[in-house]
Amino acid sequence: MEAYLDNSSTTQVCTEAASAISDALLRNWGNPSSLHRKGNEAKAILDSARSAIARKLSCDPEEIFFTSGGTESNNISILGTADAMKRYGNRIVITSIEHSSVEESAAFLEKHGYEVVRLKSDKEGRISEQELFNAVNSKTVLVSIMAVNNEVGTIQPVEAAKKAVRLSRSNAIVHCDAVQAFGKLDIKPASMGVDLMSISSHKIHGPKGVGALYVRGGFNNEHAAVKILPRTFGGLQEYTLRPGTEPVPAIAGFGAAVAELPDTREELSRIYSLRRYLLQKLSAIDGILLNSPEDALPYVVNISVMGINSEPMMNHLSSRGVYVSSGSACSRGKKSRVLKNMGLSDERISCALRISFSRFTRTGDIDMLVAGIRDGKNSIRTK
Amino acid sequence: MEAYLDNSSTTQVCTEAASAISDALLRNWGNPSSLHRKGNEAKAILDSARSAIARKLSCDPEEIFFTSGGTESNNISILGTADAMKRYGNRIVITSIEHSSVEESAAFLEKHGYEVVRLKSDKEGRISEQELFNAVNSKTVLVSIMAVNNEVGTIQPVEAAKKAVRLSRSNAIVHCDAVQAFGKLDIKPASMGVDLMSISSHKIHGPKGVGALYVRGGFNNEHAAVKILPRTFGGLQEYTLRPGTEPVPAIAGFGAAVAELPDTREELSRIYSLRRYLLQKLSAIDGILLNSPEDALPYVVNISVMGINSEPMMNHLSSRGVYVSSGSACSRGKKSRVLKNMGLSDERISCALRISFSRFTRTGDIDMLVAGIRDGKNSIRTK
Repeated sequence: MEAYLDNSSTTQVCTEAASAISDALLRNWGNPSSLHRKGNEAKAILDSARSAIARKLSCDPEEIFFTSGGTESNNISILGTADAMKRYGNRIVITSIEHSSVEESAAFLEKHGYEVVRLKSDKEGRISEQELFNAVNSKTVLVSIMAVNNEVGTIQPVEAAKKAVRLSRSNAIVHCDAVQAFGKLDIKPASMGVDLMSISSHKIHGPKGVGALYVRGGFNNEHAAVKILPRTFGGLQEYTLRPGTEPVPAIAGFGAAVAELPDTREELSRIYSLRRYLLQKLSAIDGILLNSPEDALPYVVNISVMGINSEPMMNHLSSRGVYVSSGSACSRGKKSRVLKNMGLSDERISCALRISFSRFTRTGDIDMLVAGIRDGKNSIRTK
Repeated sequence: MEAYLDNSSTTQVCTEAASAISDALLRNWGNPSSLHRKGNEAKAILDSARSAIARKLSCDPEEIFFTSGGTESNNISILGTADAMKRYGNRIVITSIEHSSVEESAAFLEKHGYEVVRLKSDKEGRISEQELFNAVNSKTVLVSIMAVNNEVGTIQPVEAAKKAVRLSRSNAIVHCDAVQAFGKLDIKPASMGVDLMSISSHKIHGPKGVGALYVRGGFNNEHAAVKILPRTFGGLQEYTLRPGTEPVPAIAGFGAAVAELPDTREELSRIYSLRRYLLQKLSAIDGILLNSPEDALPYVVNISVMGINSEPMMNHLSSRGVYVSSGSACSRGKKSRVLKNMGLSDERISCALRISFSRFTRTGDIDMLVAGIRDGKNSIRTK
């Protein structure tokens, strides 16, 4: 028996995705750029996955570009926009709690003469709309705000970005890292005023190695509206925004996983129940503090088990087949920038655990987790 | 019955790779960066594939970095080196017959003030060592030469690059796009004097969506010798040279495909026989010209069926289940830069077909192809 509660790091591939991948590997293994029948068969897989994603985001399939994942989508957005928008200004507004792929891309630009403003979060991990309005000025070329924070689940006021851009009378492009929101909230870039949106397959029970970037109006066509330069050069794939032979099997799996996404509202209500169940069980254990805000997306529950560092607790839980994390998997246990920004004490940060749900999570998983934490509290030697 | 003879575009995934992928999808679907058991299981897959590739290239596993494919490996090499080597000079030497991912990366640098020298090929598609020695000077920061040309199979004098660099007393880095050579020739970057080498999974019966970059001495460690800057920023994956959650299933398949590679010498001799068989059969048909040189790697046979354009012939063959290409799949039928460089007439170029073999190719495939070409010559209306 295992309880996997680290779904913000990655998710188990659903059977529909696995079988779509298998089909693509065994039957439709042609190169989508090849002009013969084997090529056409492979291209049909791309088209179908692209349409499934476009339907989910209420956009046109020509606005969806496949990438190798969320990190690449974020990099293309930040660096490609800065590159294309140079003549309009050099100011970039992000938040202090973005994923490392946004933060590190912005830091790279900062080293190369860009001015990067990082909006602070309040103690609930949320940025302030007023500060956003103040930060975006006429020299701003990009505003990047994540939809849902990956470590604590806070929902950010992404819709305010376009308003800030309008108020500033700048040409700034609005990017949203929606990796943790896609499939969990109804996110429609057009109605949110978002020009570029990053999503990833492996956070929604699809395979690793593929993600997508929504680009309003498309790229390299007559409707193209967003100024962005590719980061990769080569063949004609993805309208030249992202050259290289497409990962057809992974894209097939991504498409299948998207098609299997449950009704967002119904599933969200089930996840709220799971969180209530978890918090109720945890309330019977002493010294547990909740780091996620009440109104966070309930898929992510960040807690601190005071007195016991994250790593020994994670190891203890792992040995019992219970899997959680201390923060973003991408930073492999480095001290959380997000929790620090929320103003939590060092001790509380070093005792943090991120519990994250998916549509595969059941109350039995939570029972195993709570039993593991209770047992860990007794058996792990504190410092 | 089908005859797939477009193996330089992509190859059929071998059963060993498909089953390794399936295993990774269904069992080891954790995030390799996660610090719990599910993470460790996934990381073990990366380690094992990395070792398999390193054994094949006679290098250290720490010198192998996973990427999304050949295009990304080439982009990191060209752009990452130029970025890191700025203070040593701005001259880059490539060949006029590189894959579009090398050519377009270099063209991008050219637009940004770099001097790009493109070595011309002779009529057999081979660059001259003497011209290489002349081209590399003290301001040169990068020399990039492909091991085997993707359209005609010509083997390039890659080993001469390091000698050219030594003669010039520059600090130039030597990159080799070995996508078409890996698994077909014994290529060992260290003994070839190559600092950076690109390879791809889907050309050797592995899945699409993954490739690797060999970096002499590794990256971000105390042995690192090659100056190169990442193109992507984010988490700590691949020693930060290529952040983003690794495509574990594809990497598992890549590793399995590498482990299944046959003995290079034995297989090469079988492929030579296949080429002899093909050329003998074709010699019975009028108006067929061989564009590949005699001493090319026999996996690629480029011909022109004079009087019949590539596209109608490819369509005709495709309708009979015979698959070839007119050139690189990545350029989707654009007029071949490689054949033009070899000095072929426009008519000969527009009638070109690339036939490419793999270890799955049998004489029966060739029989189907030759019958198809013969029939096409009679049935396709010439202009």
